[in-house]
Amino acid sequence: MLTGIYQNNPRFGEITKNLEQAIKTMEGIKVDLMVLPELFATGYQFTSISELEGLAEKIPDGPTCDALIRYARNNNLYIVFGIAEKDNGKFYNSAALVGPDGLAGLYRKSHLFYEEKLFFTPGDTGFNVYDIGSARVGIMICYDWWFPEAARTLALKGADVICHPANLVLTGCHRAMTTRSLENAVYSVTANRIGAEKRGNKSELRFTGKSQIADPKGEIILSLEASKEGIAVIDIDVERARDKAITSMNDRFYDRRPELYKII
Amino acid sequence: MLTGIYQNNPRFGEITKNLEQAIKTMEGIKVDLMVLPELFATGYQFTSISELEGLAEKIPDGPTCDALIRYARNNNLYIVFGIAEKDNGKFYNSAALVGPDGLAGLYRKSHLFYEEKLFFTPGDTGFNVYDIGSARVGIMICYDWWFPEAARTLALKGADVICHPANLVLTGCHRAMTTRSLENAVYSVTANRIGAEKRGNKSELRFTGKSQIADPKGEIILSLEASKEGIAVIDIDVERARDKAITSMNDRFYDRRPELYKII
Repeated sequence: MLTGIYQNNPRFGEITKNLEQAIKTMEGIKVDLMVLPELFATGYQFTSISELEGLAEKIPDGPTCDALIRYARNNNLYIVFGIAEKDNGKFYNSAALVGPDGLAGLYRKSHLFYEEKLFFTPGDTGFNVYDIGSARVGIMICYDWWFPEAARTLALKGADVICHPANLVLTGCHRAMTTRSLENAVYSVTANRIGAEKRGNKSELRFTGKSQIADPKGEIILSLEASKEGIAVIDIDVERARDKAITSMNDRFYDRRPELYKII
Repeated sequence: MLTGIYQNNPRFGEITKNLEQAIKTMEGIKVDLMVLPELFATGYQFTSISELEGLAEKIPDGPTCDALIRYARNNNLYIVFGIAEKDNGKFYNSAALVGPDGLAGLYRKSHLFYEEKLFFTPGDTGFNVYDIGSARVGIMICYDWWFPEAARTLALKGADVICHPANLVLTGCHRAMTTRSLENAVYSVTANRIGAEKRGNKSELRFTGKSQIADPKGEIILSLEASKEGIAVIDIDVERARDKAITSMNDRFYDRRPELYKII
């Protein structure tokens, strides 16, 4: 399955421009599943609820979903992208999965990072897996990486590929995602952004780029640069994520001892 | 707290010799907590139950526990070490914690690796934490590292330091343990062995050494060589493992969303 990552440096608040850039960058690239960063069309550092309200969209009835669904239909692919969602007076840091038939999945970020807590409601969707034909894909967003339960839940629910839109500002994730891939034998697709944001009187945030795909052995098989926008595609063998064996006598899932875990 | 790792190349079946070497190597080294490898006194690759029966010990009434309890008492330290345990007609791949007052903890390996399944009973102790005064220590053994639930359970039960006796033959653990440390903000002390074993008609096993201590930020703060026996000690600040904060608004434990995890 041809799987891609798109890494951008959005201009804050300029949804149309950021969206057009994403679509223009994707055009002509053959891919089955493309992952875009967290909040790729709005930018990240909101300064007020009213500002967020002006940029957040209903899903799937906003301009970002609309444009990407159209692109997915015309180009026969699936796209996972981060989006500021509004629903019923609440805001979520969400990721949508769209494909040829429209909206195929919605994830609302479970673990909110730093000042996201001032603007967004903690996600209520849980971690779900969607069958797109060529693979079963799960979604988590950025800071979810700190919590092994997130990727584990997706893997146990059958995910072959974990789509991981991100706006990373801390170190640690790139390496940890190789562990998430290894411990679960899944592909992880981390689409990060680059650049910096300093809005209003807030501290500057610097984003770390290096979007990556890790394979079920925990090896990084595709990686973008730290400070350049870009797009890249690699062909992944989804079957490798369905074999959880470690040795002829060991299996990541059958060897689990849930009765001994006290983690809830 | 002065924390040490001991890395050896045991001669299979020569408990007295391996034990004497360990004690001789430790002598004169000031340390509060010392971690020895999995099955450090017996060697690893058993070829029959009767062979295992001849080498396994009751805990704490066997020669290995006896000698290490005496050493711990005389030198006022705690020691975690891997040991082949026999109890009630069963064998466990265990790790004991001994200190000045004798046996302080017992862990029976939960996840058995490869042909260990032919000889040992899966552990029934679960993952427990022991207060040794200067720290709360948890124990897991080798292959447990693949399962994020093991370290997570120990951390949620209050472990500051995860003692991790190992006989590693696969790659991946050294890096993954830095993730275990980072995601839980704990010290992890992986005491591995070196050398090779090829017993009877079994395939040769090569052990990877590089025993390490990772800190709560996931950085390796102490590391031994890949193919030399050795011992090393570092002073760790246990308080760092009691602060689970990531930012002023984020905490590894308070941010968890157990209601969304489906991992049992």
